[in-house]
Amino acid sequence: MLMFSYCQMASSNIRYGEGVTREIGMDLQNMGARNVCLMTDKNLSVLPPVKAVLESMAQNGVNYKVYDQVRVEPTDTSFKQAIAFAKNDCFDVYVAVGGGSVIDTCKAANLYASHPEADFLDFVNAPIGKGKPVTGVLKPLIAVPTTAGTGSETTGVAIFDFEELKAKTGIASRALKPTLGMVDSLHTLHMPERVAANSGFDVLCHSLESYTALPYNMRKPCPPNPINRPAYQGSNPISDVWSRHALNVVAKYMKRAVRDPEDLEARSSMHLASVFAGIGFGNAGVHLCHGMSYPIAGNVKTYRAKGYNVDHPVVPHGLSVVLTSPAVFNFTAPMCPERHLEAAEILGADISRVKREDAGPLLADTLRQFLYDLQVEDGLSAVGYTKDDVPDLVKGTIPQERVTKLSPREHTEEDLTHLFEASLKLY
Amino acid sequence: MLMFSYCQMASSNIRYGEGVTREIGMDLQNMGARNVCLMTDKNLSVLPPVKAVLESMAQNGVNYKVYDQVRVEPTDTSFKQAIAFAKNDCFDVYVAVGGGSVIDTCKAANLYASHPEADFLDFVNAPIGKGKPVTGVLKPLIAVPTTAGTGSETTGVAIFDFEELKAKTGIASRALKPTLGMVDSLHTLHMPERVAANSGFDVLCHSLESYTALPYNMRKPCPPNPINRPAYQGSNPISDVWSRHALNVVAKYMKRAVRDPEDLEARSSMHLASVFAGIGFGNAGVHLCHGMSYPIAGNVKTYRAKGYNVDHPVVPHGLSVVLTSPAVFNFTAPMCPERHLEAAEILGADISRVKREDAGPLLADTLRQFLYDLQVEDGLSAVGYTKDDVPDLVKGTIPQERVTKLSPREHTEEDLTHLFEASLKLY
Repeated sequence: MLMFSYCQMASSNIRYGEGVTREIGMDLQNMGARNVCLMTDKNLSVLPPVKAVLESMAQNGVNYKVYDQVRVEPTDTSFKQAIAFAKNDCFDVYVAVGGGSVIDTCKAANLYASHPEADFLDFVNAPIGKGKPVTGVLKPLIAVPTTAGTGSETTGVAIFDFEELKAKTGIASRALKPTLGMVDSLHTLHMPERVAANSGFDVLCHSLESYTALPYNMRKPCPPNPINRPAYQGSNPISDVWSRHALNVVAKYMKRAVRDPEDLEARSSMHLASVFAGIGFGNAGVHLCHGMSYPIAGNVKTYRAKGYNVDHPVVPHGLSVVLTSPAVFNFTAPMCPERHLEAAEILGADISRVKREDAGPLLADTLRQFLYDLQVEDGLSAVGYTKDDVPDLVKGTIPQERVTKLSPREHTEEDLTHLFEASLKLY
Repeated sequence: MLMFSYCQMASSNIRYGEGVTREIGMDLQNMGARNVCLMTDKNLSVLPPVKAVLESMAQNGVNYKVYDQVRVEPTDTSFKQAIAFAKNDCFDVYVAVGGGSVIDTCKAANLYASHPEADFLDFVNAPIGKGKPVTGVLKPLIAVPTTAGTGSETTGVAIFDFEELKAKTGIASRALKPTLGMVDSLHTLHMPERVAANSGFDVLCHSLESYTALPYNMRKPCPPNPINRPAYQGSNPISDVWSRHALNVVAKYMKRAVRDPEDLEARSSMHLASVFAGIGFGNAGVHLCHGMSYPIAGNVKTYRAKGYNVDHPVVPHGLSVVLTSPAVFNFTAPMCPERHLEAAEILGADISRVKREDAGPLLADTLRQFLYDLQVEDGLSAVGYTKDDVPDLVKGTIPQERVTKLSPREHTEEDLTHLFEASLKLY
C-alpha cells in the first residue's frame, strides 16, 4: 500500500514557571558553557527579562557576550548581521531573549555559524532557496520568549523578510528547534498593549490554521523515506489536541490579556497558549493566513505600527496574519465545515441553528467582531494597501508553498486575488 | 524567593500511522545502524508486528539479532538476562517490539550495556537502589508498542519486579526515553481481549492519577538546580491537557476496544490515548494506584491471569493498578474535589446535583461500575489475597516513594492498610 502518511510529534523541551528565568545561569553551568551568545533587541536590552538573564549568568560565573541589534521583524540583511557576529566568535551556547524576531535571528546565527561554508540560500526553503537538509551539529540554544507569542521556542522555523523579493520566507528544519524553552510568565507583563494584541493574533491564527490544515493522511507527496518528510505534516490527532486547547484559551483570556498588563492569569495563560499553538503549528503547519502574511509584511510602504518603538515601517507579524483571517476561513470552510463551526463556537458564536454551508460566513463574522473589539486596523487598506497592490501581494504569496500547500482547499491566483481584495476592508 | 517549581515538558518523538512500522528499516538505515538488537517476547515473536519489523529490516539490508526471551511482567532476573545478552555483543541501535514489559526490558539492556562497570542497583530508584544520575550515553532505541498501553514508548521509566522484595520498582531517567516511538495502530488488533482490557486500565489510571497528582508548584523539595529535579513533577497545565484528553478517549472507546478486536477506530484511539497518557504521566507522575500496584503484582501467589499465555503466576500490570482505584480516589478526592467530579463526569456520571464532599464516593462508584462492566475480577481477594496479606502489601508500598509522594493527600501506613482492605472486594 503506497498511500499512507504519518504525523511525527517531535515535541519540545519546555520549562514553565514564574521566575524560572532566574535558573538559566545554572542550566548554562550544567551545560559546561564557556562562551554564551545572548541575543536580544534594543528595547528589551534594558527591560527585566534580559536583566534577569544577565544577573543569573553573573551569579553563576557564566562568560557571555551580548548582541542587542536584532531587528524587530528581521530581514535577510539583519539575519546576516547576526550571523556575522556569531561567526566572528566561538560561542558554545546561544540564549535568545525576546519575541519571535529575536528567537528566529538567534536560530539563524546558530545555524550558519555551525555551517561556515554554507551559502545563505542553502538552507532557505525551496523554491526561494535550496532547502538543503541540515547535516551539521548546531550548538544548544535556550529560547526565552517574552511575547505570547509566536511559539518560536518550540519550533525549528526561522522566518525573515527577503527584501529583494518583498516577501517573508523561512528556514525550517528540526535541527533548529531550541534545546530548551524557558517560559516565564512574568516576562509577558512588559509587553505593550499592541504587542500583546498582535502576538495574541498569531496564537489565534496558529490554532485556527493548524486545526483546519489539510489532514496528515491526505498530504501529498508521501516521501517513502522519513528523512525527506517536511516538518509540517498537516492536521493530525496529536496537534488537534493542542490547537483546540489553544483556541479555547484565546477565547477565554485574550481580551483580558490585551487590556490589562497586570492581569497575570490572563497574560500567563496566553503565554502558555502560544507554546501550545507552537507545538500544534510546528507539527501540523499553518496555511493561507500565514502564507499571505509574508508579502503583506514584506511590501510595507510607510505604515508605522502603533505601539512599536522601531525606526522603520513595519506591519507586525501577528497583524499581517490576522487581517486576512475572515476572508481565508470563509474560503476554506467548505472543506471541513465542522471544524470551522467548532472554532466559531469556541470563539463565542451560537451555532445551534447554523447549517454546515454557513460555517464559513459565521466564522468570518465571528472573527471580524473579535478583531473589531480588539481595535484591529480596518483591513489591508488601513496599513497602506490599495486594490492596485493586490497583484504584487498575490505574486509574493505564490512562492510560500511551504505553508500554502497545507491549505485544506486548493487555490488559484484568482482565488488569492479575491482573498486579498476581500481583506482590503474588514468592517 | 525560594519557593517556586516548574514543570518540564520534555516530550517525545512519536510517529503515528497505520502501517508505519514498515518504515523502520529505512529509519535504521538513516541512523547508520550496523548491528541492531531487536527485543520482543515469545508470543509476539511469531505475530505480525514483529514480522513487519523483520521484513523491513531485511528489505533495507539492516543487520540484526533477535532476543525473544523477554519475560512478560519482568523481574530483576529477567532484566539481567537481557542485559547480559546486550553486553555480550556490540549493538548500536535497539528496537523493542511489544508491550511495556518488552520496552522496559530493552531500555534496561541499553542502559547497562552502555555502563558496563555499573552495578544493577546503581540506577534503580532510591531508596531501593542508589538512584544515581545517568551520565553515560545510551544507544538510540526505537520503541514499537503493541499494547494500548503503558505509554512506555514516551517515558524514561523501566519497571521490574524486584523478587527478593516482592515488589515492583523501577529505573527513571530522561536518558532512558526512547529516541522514537512508532505507534502503529494495526498492531493493537492482535491483542487478546484481557490484554486489551488490562492495558486499557493502565491508560485509565495514568490519566486519573496524573490529573489528580500533587500540583507541580506544591511539590517539595524544590531543588534549586534543575539537574536535580525528578522526572515526575506533579500535575501541571501542560500534562493536564493530555490527562483530560486521554480520559475522554477511555470513556468513549475503551469498552468497544476491549469487546471487538476488529474495531480499528476504537483500538487505534486507545493506542493513541496510551501515548497521550504516557506523556501526561511521564511529566506529571502517578501516585497511589501505581505505588500500591507494585506489591500487588510482586506478591502474586498462584493467580494465573486469564487470557495470558505465560508459564508463571502473574497479576498483569493494568489489573494490579486498577483494583485499588475506587478506594484510592475516594481517599484523594477531598484534596481536589473538582478534578474528581470532572473525572466522574467524563466517565459518564451525572454530577449536576453532587456536592463537592461526595466527589470521592461518586468517582469510586463510577469506577466500580466501569470495572464491573469490563469483567474485572472482584477485588484483591479474587487474585489471591486475604486480609492477612495486607501488612505485606503495605510494607511493599512504603518504598515506592518515587510515585506515592505525588499523592495529593498525605497517607500513613494506617491509611494504606484501609485502602488495601477496602480493595479486597469491589462489588
